[in-house]
Amino acid sequence: MEITPGPLLGTIQSPDDLKKLSSDQLQQVVNELRQYIIDVVSLHGGHFGASLGVVELTVALHHVFNTPYDQLVWDVGHQAYGHKILTGRRDNFATNRKYKGISGFPNRAESEYDSFGVGHSSTSISAALGMAMAAKYKGEEDRKVVAVIGDGALTAGLAFEGMNHAGVADTDLLIILNDNCMSIDPNVGALKEYLTDITTSQTYNKLKDDIWKALGKLPVGGHFSREMASKIEHSIKSFVSRSSNLFEALKLRYFGPIDGHNINKLVDTLNDLKNIPGPKLLHIITVKGKGYALAENDQTKWHAPGLFDKITGEIYKKKYELPQPPKYQDVFGRTIIELAEKNKKIFGVTPAMPSGSSLKFMMEAMPDRAFDVGICEQHAVTLSAGMATQGMKVFCNIYSSFMQRAYDQVIHDVAIQNLPVVFCLDRAGLVGEDGPTHHGAYDIAYMRCVPNIIVSAPMNESELRNLMYTAQLESTKHPFVIRYPRGEGVMPEWKTPFQEIEIGKARKIKDGKELAILSFGHPGNFVQSAIRTLRTEGLDPAHYDMRFVKPLDEAMLHEVFQKFDRIITVEDGAITGGFGSAILEFMNAHNYSATVKTLGIPDIVVEHGSPKELQKECGFDAESIASLVREMMKDKINTGILG
Amino acid sequence: MEITPGPLLGTIQSPDDLKKLSSDQLQQVVNELRQYIIDVVSLHGGHFGASLGVVELTVALHHVFNTPYDQLVWDVGHQAYGHKILTGRRDNFATNRKYKGISGFPNRAESEYDSFGVGHSSTSISAALGMAMAAKYKGEEDRKVVAVIGDGALTAGLAFEGMNHAGVADTDLLIILNDNCMSIDPNVGALKEYLTDITTSQTYNKLKDDIWKALGKLPVGGHFSREMASKIEHSIKSFVSRSSNLFEALKLRYFGPIDGHNINKLVDTLNDLKNIPGPKLLHIITVKGKGYALAENDQTKWHAPGLFDKITGEIYKKKYELPQPPKYQDVFGRTIIELAEKNKKIFGVTPAMPSGSSLKFMMEAMPDRAFDVGICEQHAVTLSAGMATQGMKVFCNIYSSFMQRAYDQVIHDVAIQNLPVVFCLDRAGLVGEDGPTHHGAYDIAYMRCVPNIIVSAPMNESELRNLMYTAQLESTKHPFVIRYPRGEGVMPEWKTPFQEIEIGKARKIKDGKELAILSFGHPGNFVQSAIRTLRTEGLDPAHYDMRFVKPLDEAMLHEVFQKFDRIITVEDGAITGGFGSAILEFMNAHNYSATVKTLGIPDIVVEHGSPKELQKECGFDAESIASLVREMMKDKINTGILG
Repeated sequence: MEITPGPLLGTIQSPDDLKKLSSDQLQQVVNELRQYIIDVVSLHGGHFGASLGVVELTVALHHVFNTPYDQLVWDVGHQAYGHKILTGRRDNFATNRKYKGISGFPNRAESEYDSFGVGHSSTSISAALGMAMAAKYKGEEDRKVVAVIGDGALTAGLAFEGMNHAGVADTDLLIILNDNCMSIDPNVGALKEYLTDITTSQTYNKLKDDIWKALGKLPVGGHFSREMASKIEHSIKSFVSRSSNLFEALKLRYFGPIDGHNINKLVDTLNDLKNIPGPKLLHIITVKGKGYALAENDQTKWHAPGLFDKITGEIYKKKYELPQPPKYQDVFGRTIIELAEKNKKIFGVTPAMPSGSSLKFMMEAMPDRAFDVGICEQHAVTLSAGMATQGMKVFCNIYSSFMQRAYDQVIHDVAIQNLPVVFCLDRAGLVGEDGPTHHGAYDIAYMRCVPNIIVSAPMNESELRNLMYTAQLESTKHPFVIRYPRGEGVMPEWKTPFQEIEIGKARKIKDGKELAILSFGHPGNFVQSAIRTLRTEGLDPAHYDMRFVKPLDEAMLHEVFQKFDRIITVEDGAITGGFGSAILEFMNAHNYSATVKTLGIPDIVVEHGSPKELQKECGFDAESIASLVREMMKDKINTGILG
Repeated sequence: MEITPGPLLGTIQSPDDLKKLSSDQLQQVVNELRQYIIDVVSLHGGHFGASLGVVELTVALHHVFNTPYDQLVWDVGHQAYGHKILTGRRDNFATNRKYKGISGFPNRAESEYDSFGVGHSSTSISAALGMAMAAKYKGEEDRKVVAVIGDGALTAGLAFEGMNHAGVADTDLLIILNDNCMSIDPNVGALKEYLTDITTSQTYNKLKDDIWKALGKLPVGGHFSREMASKIEHSIKSFVSRSSNLFEALKLRYFGPIDGHNINKLVDTLNDLKNIPGPKLLHIITVKGKGYALAENDQTKWHAPGLFDKITGEIYKKKYELPQPPKYQDVFGRTIIELAEKNKKIFGVTPAMPSGSSLKFMMEAMPDRAFDVGICEQHAVTLSAGMATQGMKVFCNIYSSFMQRAYDQVIHDVAIQNLPVVFCLDRAGLVGEDGPTHHGAYDIAYMRCVPNIIVSAPMNESELRNLMYTAQLESTKHPFVIRYPRGEGVMPEWKTPFQEIEIGKARKIKDGKELAILSFGHPGNFVQSAIRTLRTEGLDPAHYDMRFVKPLDEAMLHEVFQKFDRIITVEDGAITGGFGSAILEFMNAHNYSATVKTLGIPDIVVEHGSPKELQKECGFDAESIASLVREMMKDKINTGILG
């Protein structure tokens, strides 16, 4: 279906066209842009609430600043749809997040207006500061750099590190704090409360006014001289401006808070700030989902709702006749409660992903034992380590690509001390539409090189439950990684009884002839599917679900290498240094020789698309596996041995 | 030489013995403990200034708190020597940092008083909060948890993440901010300035007092009623307590600053704070190196001075007759200046290691182009990425084990965007006395699995220079890792002319017979040494310095595998997933078959000791390499083929 932009929006080919508009026209662009985002996302999907919340800001920024010479750095990038639509990507915006289409995040390869690629949070201040310092060094005094960061992203340590430097680096960096009290889920932590404080009555500005008003009314004479009044006022002023505000404490001039939905106020303020030198922060208040009532009222649900009827607000769900397999995340979310009911030592920790990880179920059921710590992966891991020293069994659930942010904490605080923290790495493998920043591609390689850690992956829901069960046993004395993908598993009847899995023990799924396929995790299902096809062709490979890449099931591997000299490894992770590489290390260590083909994610930046499209592109979907088997068995097929 | 503790210190077998002491006796313990640290470190080496700075705090904490039931978490751990001496490790303290001796850092395996293992900074708040939350959940209401963190460590994002959570988690956690204005080098950033602000006159406490005093003197009557005075006072009070202080903004009750060298004041304050519920922060002011004048006056030099004469303060240096090879760090530090003089796009960035990395030379020579950003590895990388978008060539120098703290920034901000940032990974490999937290063991594995990155290691000073030269060329369009070890290289005449190295091009050091040794980086020198020995025995292996683990020199490897079927790989990194593993991947991909033995760091936590001791333990020193060659050539030796 063709989506038509409003009449004024339709004329905006680039931000240059915005610069000439009057206040009224800017308001019209705002209205039309908001409607356009609703139109496109309802039909094509994507992130929703974040972009609706910054429509005014987006228009104001491109109106006031000289983009792309002036540089806008959007933190995370969920909110940059308006930015993309205004910067030449309106007409192909319907390809957003689709295979070979435009990216759901700012992307330097896509547009000169996307000054910095994002996806993970909290990078914008550091990146923008780097740009501002470079501009200053190059003598580009007129070049402005603006970072737009949400209050959720501000809780991550990286943002604090950036502010700590920005405050003393002599640049004109403008940080815009887009305060909507939300990450994907409601924001948490002391900083959130602080921001609420300074935007509600009893605070900073109001208090400043109150005191000054009161002082203005003071009688002069007696013990109270003008001098004294002036001295007090001076003290309070310097006090208020220098150290009364968290951002001022970090040497950032603080402005605001102002209404982020008032386009004229935003334009005026940005025009003023453009001419104020030095590092500064503008605090704006916005509503996530602004302008779409349902989204305003349930912001988590409408963060990325999928397709919906924009009039009724009905979110379309596929309907199935038969019971469908659950998502791995929901199996995690339900299973941890079952386990925690029996084992009082179990805790659950998530950094800002209660909905995404489904830890929210436990947070509701056992609020004293399950926590959202905010966008703080490092803290989540070290907190878990601290709890583990007290005998607790913490399930720390972090998306695979976000775990990259806590790598040192895994090594330094957990692995070296051999603390039995359980890491559930959700979204492991190719995540699909979110693309390169979110693919959980590297965890097998970056985890298995670390001593003491057990690294496992379930092939299905039941295996996930059993790995979780095993991980929380008192007898399990090591850090324990369980990686699983985004989305559905394969077992509609998922709630199987718990069984302990021997650590490092693989499963032989089926015996076979001539060739063995070793899989790790969910892609074992692709192998099964390939084998079903191949059997109709007279090919009968064996299949082993290795379950653990560390420790490897050496007994099983000896069996495999003694029996087979054609082997395929399949994983949903980087081939370089990954599961296949571990198998090669085993083969070499034990002097076996075999033809081994390693399937997985190749050594490239895999772009976005559906998981199926990307698995095919990478060559480890069922069809690719079947093709490789045929290829490796060509001699046998041609000589009719299998006939 | 026997070191005798002072008479009172000699009676302290555990903190229990401290609890009974009077104020005067505590002061005596302080004096004797300080002297004992000076005695031991001057003779046996180790970290110096940090522990001297917290002698009073250490004694006060163990006097006031019920350790080890109450838990002390020392951040970083450089400062925990006094703690170790008071907790049963006085008599073997001379083995500190020595092979098989006690660790230079708190270590859970070593003592129940060491509640959390450290080495890297900024973990203490998160770990302590985890402990406090667990204690609370378990109903151990009387159990206290204290984190001691320096102002340097506080600049890292992880510390901020910890505070952001601690402020809203309902525990009695006490954070002690040990403010000495120093990391190893002087501390930097806005926070440091803020801390200076609140400890100097024009600030918080004094201002609060001033205002209240002034209000107390206000006349009552006329327009100025008691009511109004009370209202103003109330406003100011709530203002001051709620939002005027950065820590209060994060919902931590702030106490201090107090003199950290006044033992009685510390004891009284800690006794008070022990009974105040909720999360709180005590700000103490200390002097790094306190009590040893030279150390107070040059705190960076005396952070870990090596052996010295405690009377004269002379730091012993080995004297050599012949010119010695320089440290790799100094080659980096000098070479970047040479390059930057010619290439105006070069910047240097270090997170708090200007002395350790020798970037200090450039910071002195080109202060607008070389920066210490504080203990902020994440920020250092993303800042560098931001600069790179503007065409700058940033050399971001981070110790290998600290780079684990910026892993996501490497992937997300640099590699995915293919920005040509140069990462100089200093202290790669076994660092020696600092032990497991500091070994740069994993970088080969965790870097080579990431697309777009070039991963290299120089075998000597000249190679380091040439790799740096190559990395900064305009034609080099990728992120570029150069890893090199702590300490001396091998070339006294190190200042060789720059030569471009073809990316991915290995060096054949020598041809040979029957067996080839492939090395990566500095251990190539161990190989050369082994070969010298072996040649006297009639064994003549070939030697290839691979230079790059990514991309591999495939042409060279084809030559190797076509010519040799006995191969040894040598690296100063984890074998699992490392350089050897890359060679196995190549061998498998091209259907070669050979006996390959991979030497490097095995899959265990390697403890501390001298690099030589540890290299021998791990089996990749010259002698181990020679032994392995003999073993692999046994058949040829026995059959006299080589005779």
